[in-house]
Amino acid sequence: MKLYSYFRSSAAFRVRIALNLKGLDYDTIPVHLLRSGGEQHGESYRALNPEKLVPTLIDDGADNDGQAALAQSLAIIEYLEETQPQPPLLPSSAVDRAHVRGLALAIACDIHPLNNLRVLRYLSRELKLEEAARNDWYRHWCMQGLTALEARLSGDHRTGQFCYGDAPSLADCCLVPQIFNARRVDCDLSGMPTVLRIFDACMRLEAFERATPAQQPDAE
Amino acid sequence: MKLYSYFRSSAAFRVRIALNLKGLDYDTIPVHLLRSGGEQHGESYRALNPEKLVPTLIDDGADNDGQAALAQSLAIIEYLEETQPQPPLLPSSAVDRAHVRGLALAIACDIHPLNNLRVLRYLSRELKLEEAARNDWYRHWCMQGLTALEARLSGDHRTGQFCYGDAPSLADCCLVPQIFNARRVDCDLSGMPTVLRIFDACMRLEAFERATPAQQPDAE
Repeated sequence: MKLYSYFRSSAAFRVRIALNLKGLDYDTIPVHLLRSGGEQHGESYRALNPEKLVPTLIDDGADNDGQAALAQSLAIIEYLEETQPQPPLLPSSAVDRAHVRGLALAIACDIHPLNNLRVLRYLSRELKLEEAARNDWYRHWCMQGLTALEARLSGDHRTGQFCYGDAPSLADCCLVPQIFNARRVDCDLSGMPTVLRIFDACMRLEAFERATPAQQPDAE
Repeated sequence: MKLYSYFRSSAAFRVRIALNLKGLDYDTIPVHLLRSGGEQHGESYRALNPEKLVPTLIDDGADNDGQAALAQSLAIIEYLEETQPQPPLLPSSAVDRAHVRGLALAIACDIHPLNNLRVLRYLSRELKLEEAARNDWYRHWCMQGLTALEARLSGDHRTGQFCYGDAPSLADCCLVPQIFNARRVDCDLSGMPTVLRIFDACMRLEAFERATPAQQPDAE
């Protein structure tokens, strides 16, 4: 498998964690989102990923009829879950699977899209926002989303060492990159003991540590 | 089943389509996102949905140990797919399932979160943007996302009458509400023949028509 990745992309970071948790080998193909006007805008990457976003996963082994370039981090992780079920990243019951997917989507839909590179660029270039106002924006959505996540996790009996029970799941694959982002803009996470406890539990695992931005071949 | 919904919410709209496609009966409980400062902020709704977003689905029939309040439209639709498999909203092969989920997430993560009510409010209240600049923002993300979707759909042999083949899928549940939004802000969709052709095919189905904002009990 090949993963088109950028060391700092949270979406790529999620997939790296899932690949590591499942013990899958992969080659990283770096796509530098800033260099030369953004390598994601180049013709060859756009042919793979018309959204011009990372990550893209290529599964050479898939019976794919020439269509194994997979986009969207959560779709990729669901694909890994279906093709490489062990260890599972989703629970077995439908209600609990919806719970874990709901936690993941609360991050992937309601926090991260507001904080990614192209949005921050729009704030700066089109809306002429200074860095301080951009950081306020970033923190606002991080804090709002993570505060809700803390409420959900701390109030649910299914929360364990990790977001769901005592093994990492799809939800943890999304939580950890989001905390890295929150810390980059100095969010005050002191009111989120459950979120932070789970983050620390994740970071004690080699699968998470090896997926961090600093450990990537394209890290700066 | 009960669906906490707001007639104009695209996320609730997606779930309404899926419920209708699967022929499932449900009661609508309207949550007015604007009235009395936003009913989603009230204590009773927050207890169900700490993110204070619609929709929330309550499945009374679920073996849920008191935890059948499900959040996040895509998690809810995956839940419906697992508990009520017919007619399927996802293909059978893992690669194709990833393709359909990828199309859905390209809308749910990369377009819609930038255009929803709370974000437009931030633009207006915190960033003091006038309506014209807010509409530019809205159109920018709609056009960028839908242009990429057009490229993906028009270039993929799996695209049929609908986003995937000749029956509606999870991707169509996401596409139709997004086109309603795009039209509300006068996006120029003339360069997107595939997207528009699929939208029209969907709108000829009663399941989609009955899910539209205008058909909801709380429509204004």
